[in-house]
Amino acid sequence: MISGSFREIVEQYEVVFFDSFGVLRNYDGMIPGVEKTFAFLRENNIDFYILTNDASRGPKELANKFQEMGLEEITRSKIISSGMLARNYLRNKVKNGTVTYLGTEKSAHYIETAGLKTLRIQDLSLKDIDHINAMVLLDDEGYDWQGDVNKAINLLRMRNMPVIVANTDLTYPVSKGKIALAVGALADMIEKIVQKSFIRFGKPDTQMFNFAYEHVLHTRLVDKNKILMVGDTLETDIIGGNKFGIDTALVLTGNTPPEKAKMNIESTGIIPDYICSSAAV
Amino acid sequence: MISGSFREIVEQYEVVFFDSFGVLRNYDGMIPGVEKTFAFLRENNIDFYILTNDASRGPKELANKFQEMGLEEITRSKIISSGMLARNYLRNKVKNGTVTYLGTEKSAHYIETAGLKTLRIQDLSLKDIDHINAMVLLDDEGYDWQGDVNKAINLLRMRNMPVIVANTDLTYPVSKGKIALAVGALADMIEKIVQKSFIRFGKPDTQMFNFAYEHVLHTRLVDKNKILMVGDTLETDIIGGNKFGIDTALVLTGNTPPEKAKMNIESTGIIPDYICSSAAV
Amino acid sequence: MISGSFREIVEQYEVVFFDSFGVLRNYDGMIPGVEKTFAFLRENNIDFYILTNDASRGPKELANKFQEMGLEEITRSKIISSGMLARNYLRNKVKNGTVTYLGTEKSAHYIETAGLKTLRIQDLSLKDIDHINAMVLLDDEGYDWQGDVNKAINLLRMRNMPVIVANTDLTYPVSKGKIALAVGALADMIEKIVQKSFIRFGKPDTQMFNFAYEHVLHTRLVDKNKILMVGDTLETDIIGGNKFGIDTALVLTGNTPPEKAKMNIESTGIIPDYICSSAAV
Amino acid sequence: MISGSFREIVEQYEVVFFDSFGVLRNYDGMIPGVEKTFAFLRENNIDFYILTNDASRGPKELANKFQEMGLEEITRSKIISSGMLARNYLRNKVKNGTVTYLGTEKSAHYIETAGLKTLRIQDLSLKDIDHINAMVLLDDEGYDWQGDVNKAINLLRMRNMPVIVANTDLTYPVSKGKIALAVGALADMIEKIVQKSFIRFGKPDTQMFNFAYEHVLHTRLVDKNKILMVGDTLETDIIGGNKFGIDTALVLTGNTPPEKAKMNIESTGIIPDYICSSAAV
Repeated sequence: MISGSFREIVEQYEVVFFDSFGVLRNYDGMIPGVEKTFAFLRENNIDFYILTNDASRGPKELANKFQEMGLEEITRSKIISSGMLARNYLRNKVKNGTVTYLGTEKSAHYIETAGLKTLRIQDLSLKDIDHINAMVLLDDEGYDWQGDVNKAINLLRMRNMPVIVANTDLTYPVSKGKIALAVGALADMIEKIVQKSFIRFGKPDTQMFNFAYEHVLHTRLVDKNKILMVGDTLETDIIGGNKFGIDTALVLTGNTPPEKAKMNIESTGIIPDYICSSAAV
Repeated sequence: MISGSFREIVEQYEVVFFDSFGVLRNYDGMIPGVEKTFAFLRENNIDFYILTNDASRGPKELANKFQEMGLEEITRSKIISSGMLARNYLRNKVKNGTVTYLGTEKSAHYIETAGLKTLRIQDLSLKDIDHINAMVLLDDEGYDWQGDVNKAINLLRMRNMPVIVANTDLTYPVSKGKIALAVGALADMIEKIVQKSFIRFGKPDTQMFNFAYEHVLHTRLVDKNKILMVGDTLETDIIGGNKFGIDTALVLTGNTPPEKAKMNIESTGIIPDYICSSAAV
Repeated sequence: MISGSFREIVEQYEVVFFDSFGVLRNYDGMIPGVEKTFAFLRENNIDFYILTNDASRGPKELANKFQEMGLEEITRSKIISSGMLARNYLRNKVKNGTVTYLGTEKSAHYIETAGLKTLRIQDLSLKDIDHINAMVLLDDEGYDWQGDVNKAINLLRMRNMPVIVANTDLTYPVSKGKIALAVGALADMIEKIVQKSFIRFGKPDTQMFNFAYEHVLHTRLVDKNKILMVGDTLETDIIGGNKFGIDTALVLTGNTPPEKAKMNIESTGIIPDYICSSAAV
Repeated sequence: MISGSFREIVEQYEVVFFDSFGVLRNYDGMIPGVEKTFAFLRENNIDFYILTNDASRGPKELANKFQEMGLEEITRSKIISSGMLARNYLRNKVKNGTVTYLGTEKSAHYIETAGLKTLRIQDLSLKDIDHINAMVLLDDEGYDWQGDVNKAINLLRMRNMPVIVANTDLTYPVSKGKIALAVGALADMIEKIVQKSFIRFGKPDTQMFNFAYEHVLHTRLVDKNKILMVGDTLETDIIGGNKFGIDTALVLTGNTPPEKAKMNIESTGIIPDYICSSAAV
């Protein structure tokens, strides 16, 4: 485990995978200095992708957020979201019928672009469910938790179908010191009640990293040992990158503050290859 | 394990503990025939108590429900609810200050009768929390799940206090084939997020059975082996009664339908002393 | 939460419940100064009991250990072990037949004194199991883990019977900084494999505290608010005492070292009424 | 979900992934008829791989077992074991030092071929651990469970290192109706005690399927939708294949007997694309 300057570390790699929240931005806006990082990457011909468990909106909209902050290098094609893996599943394994979902209408993008009909859980009638072929949990917003979570539970007791969780995070930060439940927490609760096995997409699962790696290979032939994962969370970014077999750098601008880094690494047993104060060069 | 007539079984005991839902009533009203059971108990000088994990209202109101159905023997003093254990906890261990809660205003009865101030979570300001000395999870109704569960989580991150769960059930039946999440499911989700240890009251925990036994001893001296627990749920009524050391009878009018009884006993390893088709004599 | 002298705290109570390991003794012998505590209790007519999750030997032998250290006040009748609750269960609920067990022959004391035949799991033939009416997990020693745990699993798949766990602890200390798995950890693993519901006795379950309280009431009439639980472990001694409704004192001579006390109380949400450096007066 | 003849199903695909135990062989030897399946695959130019969570020996020895049964097509290069993924991890992420392990000396093959020094846990001294850079859990045999599991736990408390679980299965069948604990069950127990995050390889994790897919791509260019996963276990083979995005066929010769297939699919929510009585054509 090496503590060092992000610049000296990153220049040893050909591709960098970045987590988004806590690494490039937070609830206040951009993490100071990362705009220079993307200039540095471009100058050094180092490619990059953003790997995010955010399925609340499509890649284009996710990219727009970065563009508005002035990170113009982060275009739609640079975004790898867990929603894209959910879409692949729907395309390959569901194929037809209607998919009901918990999330905003924006998040339904991932179902629609898989070529399937969508139905908000609130618009579903439990008397007419024979055409429902899957359920997707996309976001914690866009529905009434009490009424619609209960409806989802009863639907799953009445009809057997795959349930896809497009964001496995349990919480997300909303302001300094405050968090909110993410849809992954609701998914865990529902799964325990209905006692079925849901299908989850997103870090730390290596399918996310492999999906990003396939994107890399479309544009350049790179060995895994020339890829660096940069994240702020040991339990998702770092353990996932480690398991996928790439090098990992922990930055201290998000979930792992400087004063807790050593203790958390010791207590979890999740060991990054590098520790950097931030992703700024 | 003996399959037999409820009348012949029950007359061997001096006291009977009944679960409520699925044993004496369901969403349609009274389970057919149980009105004769209470007449039979009276004639034979067999005492009884109702042990329920329902903390949504006070004992008087819980008793009223039975009275309206014509079960006049079930008065307020016959009701043992998990809310009463939560009240004891608050009395013995919290003693002063304000208790915030998730539940209906009716459910706050258990806090008020402990002599403590109550504050609905929706009326709480996260800027003024120094007087909050405990949180009680009472019911799944009476608040906005998304907003108020998130508020509860942030409160618990900001101030250390005991959290009492007054109903440990995960779900409850609302109509034929339909269920709803109970506050116990929300409690499990919140506890996992904040990573603190909540204090739970209700079956299958034996504290509930012991509390009922103490009530029995106030009016008559009875050995544990003269008490029968009658329930429809292996995982709460039967395993709890077994562990407490009293005899247990499974009835097939609720959570364990006749066609599943043998299979469920085999698969859970929870073995009642008796199986009866219902609690009707 | 009050930090204070153990003498000033304890003299406010009529009965004290002590955890054993980490409070009165550790792997080196007696915790310095506790011999004076028992003299102080005697002089002030304060009664006491030792509440231990140790089911590896009977109360007499557990008491002998204290006697050998010079704590002569700790006689057999002062010991409340989780094995005694297991024995009560066997007496009340199993009644006849043979009980097989994982543990030393000494630990089988609790089955024999319940009037039941015992059979070590290693002496059991899986071809002759119709007389086996229960299994008890007593200790981590006295059998071959690989062979006998596998045999126990296959027995439970072949015959439905109650499984009693007489020690719920996951680990115990064996020397400075070293621990060993306790039988509670094996119980959790076996239960997960066979997917049956085991019956557990021992702190933090309040049945242990209630059992001790019943012993108290045999000799003197004491209100719960005049009883103090003294322990070194938040997750067993303190949360159990709190839930039972008695006052609790955390001592810093065992599982919770001085430098971690505040952090552990904050992170678990388990709040003792008092913190004392040790149980010495 | 289509119930059909294995021959008619398999001829629609270009590559087949087979689970081993319960699909091609069981404790009695070869599943009747599968020798014809491999002839059929060869005649129809359908490629295949064996995906197994068995890390107890190297691919060559695993292949030998099939050869001895007369399945000569199953050569070393056709075997994809979870041990091979563990080896990749060690190669990419550990790089140097000594790796200690729980397993037979045969199973250490996967560490040695990664170019690392191996040390059986029983040969390890807890006083000389600074050169130990990783622990691998390979097999349930080859060591003393009580002594060596306890030693492993103390090692992990003394030195922070990655722990790799090369077989995530909880049990394996040893004879008709009998099972034994696999190393995955020990891994879960140890992880819970030390509270660190282990890295697991094997089905249902999609990394296993992706690793096999990469092998396929070395010899022929095949779309995922021309690959069929054939397995006997919903919770590993089928959900893993589904999540990876390939078609899945459940065979009824192993963990899922014919009389339980529909019930298990309903209760788990894991839905294969096909159900076949066996993998025989």
